[in-house]
Amino acid sequence: MHAIEKILAKNSGKESVSTGEIVVAKIDFAEVNDLYLQTIYSFWEMGGDRVWDNERLAFVFDHYAPAPTIKSAQIHKEMREFRADQNLKYHFDTNMGVCHQVMPEAGVIYPGAIVVATDSHTTTHGAFGAIGTGVGATEMATIMLSGELWFRVPEIIEVRLDGKPQEGVLPKDVILAVLGRIKADGAVYKAIDFTGSYVDSLGVAGRMTICNMAVEMGAKTAYMQPNQEVIDYVTQRAVRPFEVQHTDDGFEYSESHYFDVSSLTPQIAVPSSVDNVFPIGEVERVRVDQCLVGTCTGGRLEDLKTAADIVRGKRIAEHVRFIVIPASNEVMKKAMELGYISDFMDAGATISTPGCGPCLGAHEGILAEGEVCVTASNRNFPGRMGHRDAKIYLASPAVVAASALAGYLEQPKSDKKGAWLV
Amino acid sequence: MHAIEKILAKNSGKESVSTGEIVVAKIDFAEVNDLYLQTIYSFWEMGGDRVWDNERLAFVFDHYAPAPTIKSAQIHKEMREFRADQNLKYHFDTNMGVCHQVMPEAGVIYPGAIVVATDSHTTTHGAFGAIGTGVGATEMATIMLSGELWFRVPEIIEVRLDGKPQEGVLPKDVILAVLGRIKADGAVYKAIDFTGSYVDSLGVAGRMTICNMAVEMGAKTAYMQPNQEVIDYVTQRAVRPFEVQHTDDGFEYSESHYFDVSSLTPQIAVPSSVDNVFPIGEVERVRVDQCLVGTCTGGRLEDLKTAADIVRGKRIAEHVRFIVIPASNEVMKKAMELGYISDFMDAGATISTPGCGPCLGAHEGILAEGEVCVTASNRNFPGRMGHRDAKIYLASPAVVAASALAGYLEQPKSDKKGAWLV
Repeated sequence: MHAIEKILAKNSGKESVSTGEIVVAKIDFAEVNDLYLQTIYSFWEMGGDRVWDNERLAFVFDHYAPAPTIKSAQIHKEMREFRADQNLKYHFDTNMGVCHQVMPEAGVIYPGAIVVATDSHTTTHGAFGAIGTGVGATEMATIMLSGELWFRVPEIIEVRLDGKPQEGVLPKDVILAVLGRIKADGAVYKAIDFTGSYVDSLGVAGRMTICNMAVEMGAKTAYMQPNQEVIDYVTQRAVRPFEVQHTDDGFEYSESHYFDVSSLTPQIAVPSSVDNVFPIGEVERVRVDQCLVGTCTGGRLEDLKTAADIVRGKRIAEHVRFIVIPASNEVMKKAMELGYISDFMDAGATISTPGCGPCLGAHEGILAEGEVCVTASNRNFPGRMGHRDAKIYLASPAVVAASALAGYLEQPKSDKKGAWLV
Repeated sequence: MHAIEKILAKNSGKESVSTGEIVVAKIDFAEVNDLYLQTIYSFWEMGGDRVWDNERLAFVFDHYAPAPTIKSAQIHKEMREFRADQNLKYHFDTNMGVCHQVMPEAGVIYPGAIVVATDSHTTTHGAFGAIGTGVGATEMATIMLSGELWFRVPEIIEVRLDGKPQEGVLPKDVILAVLGRIKADGAVYKAIDFTGSYVDSLGVAGRMTICNMAVEMGAKTAYMQPNQEVIDYVTQRAVRPFEVQHTDDGFEYSESHYFDVSSLTPQIAVPSSVDNVFPIGEVERVRVDQCLVGTCTGGRLEDLKTAADIVRGKRIAEHVRFIVIPASNEVMKKAMELGYISDFMDAGATISTPGCGPCLGAHEGILAEGEVCVTASNRNFPGRMGHRDAKIYLASPAVVAASALAGYLEQPKSDKKGAWLV
């Protein structure tokens, strides 16, 4: 069996499971963000009184933090009241950050867990050897009642990533290249197992970025076998004992894709599809209005370090807004201590509250008609970040930072020692 | 003559002016914030082509920074285009802060200047011995065309502030006490000259807080005779030579009010009027949902220091949001260097982009129905910060911080050495 199947089997009380089988599995942790007040109403409509486990359900206020409208303030208020009434142990108010970042930080994500959340990018937690998947309001209400959810045991695709990337090529470039080949519908309701020497040596942040965007191929979940850095991370934080699952030798993937990351150059997803990916050198030099480093895809400390290393001591182009939003308060605090936030501000950046920011068009940097944004986030559909006629390019934090300086889409360059030459 | 009259006379080419006279005065600096795109349209409707002086007009994006809606993004876009077309020397995009803070920082505010802006709290600049006043879109368009504005030479009220305040009594408490006595309509189209030993010894930040709220009594402008700290501040920054004006001995104020600040205790303006002011000890202990330190009234470094000193090493009450928004990027950078931002975050605060924040109900902490907010900002009208049935209490940053810890309106306490005992 694959590690994913072993997790599904364990949580559904079975010895084994096989592809296509429907199982009902226990949920280790469930999270509802502030887009989904409806989950509470659905819970009540289903006759809900007390949630199944007050230590395994949390609200995260990240899409609208701090509340930008009366409506979102009302949502927060009702969720806080539900949380207090249900005595939920964990709560992530407007002072925390993006759900996919703050939950691992809080130790509720660990290898072998099944985690569901009302957010499609819950596939992020594959970085920890967990099963993470997004659900809707009704499914979540069912989980709040029962602590369980049905799963169809998915086909598992291997995406093998071997090699050592060139300077300036980041995990975001790797997943964009994968997207460009597998395409947005290439893994619908399948699981993606990222394997290979690149993954074996990849840190927590890079793993999260790659697993995060698995859902952009339609994947139900993503997986990476935990390496020592992951084990160290979760050992320091996990609130429960955990067990790492291992895929059996000889497991047969439904399909396999191979990538040599050493041959990659920085990538970019051109409007308006996540899989419309090209090496940035092949894309015309477009003038940019806004550059965003942040979100659950590109707002971790490593992303901020990369961007800060590029802009340090320089100024952004006069016509550009450079918005930097750390993925969490923990990330922001470390980034302050390391001087990155000062570096950004000296370069002319706008710093905003840790959270989702403008990624989904809620606030903190909405795009006007015809504007162009290059962003470290994960979606570039029309209207995603504001006006439907704005254009969104997806790229690594390095490309975003280099573009902020140039005022145009720009490929970051580094010297042989790895110092950025923008 | 009064110093205010001398400034009006000088800028209108007269030897002297007298109360009630209409003069047409040159404007030293004009500023348009991002609520007032209409100024550009009015400028064009009036036949405007080039603004009168491209070094004396600036846009400040502070009410909606970063843009929380498509509409505000469009406003920013059109203003940026106008700015580029007119080649305006000064520009304050979403990466700067509140207009009344960033303009003095940029050196365009100095003693003897007449400054107009599309914001009522432009009276703030009285702190520097300048005349500052708010104007509407049509008046501003006239200024953009001509560089001049008519003024009725105002009656001048003296508000004499003598004495040394007790520990825990801040400039915000002083101006609230003044408001409580003079009332919201007590100085309509009059100027307020703040005098006395308290003002003589007051630093730039405290002066700005007090002059800021002069408009809450209806004042056309406010004034404080510059002291050495003000002279030092503007000498380091002013972009033009300046001349400090002095009121002649024997000048007769239209009325005078005397306050002994040494007898004051912390004050609070109770919903829903700025002049509904009481010593906080006389107000019932109300449960608070949100606490705000920030804005043009209470977001300067001194305000942040006070609040940080109170919350350092402690945690806010579990049910409270504590939102901290530095008044400018310069303030935020210094607050980071001094550790205040880390102190706030450790205490559980939500940090937001320097700017106006939720003060005017635009974004970054909107109130839901029935919620209670205690804030270092300047207005508590129904609906000011969100839902019309939310309640807003105005207080000093010390009261706000103490309330964030307690979860209820709380009077800050300090020991005999000035250390906070909350």
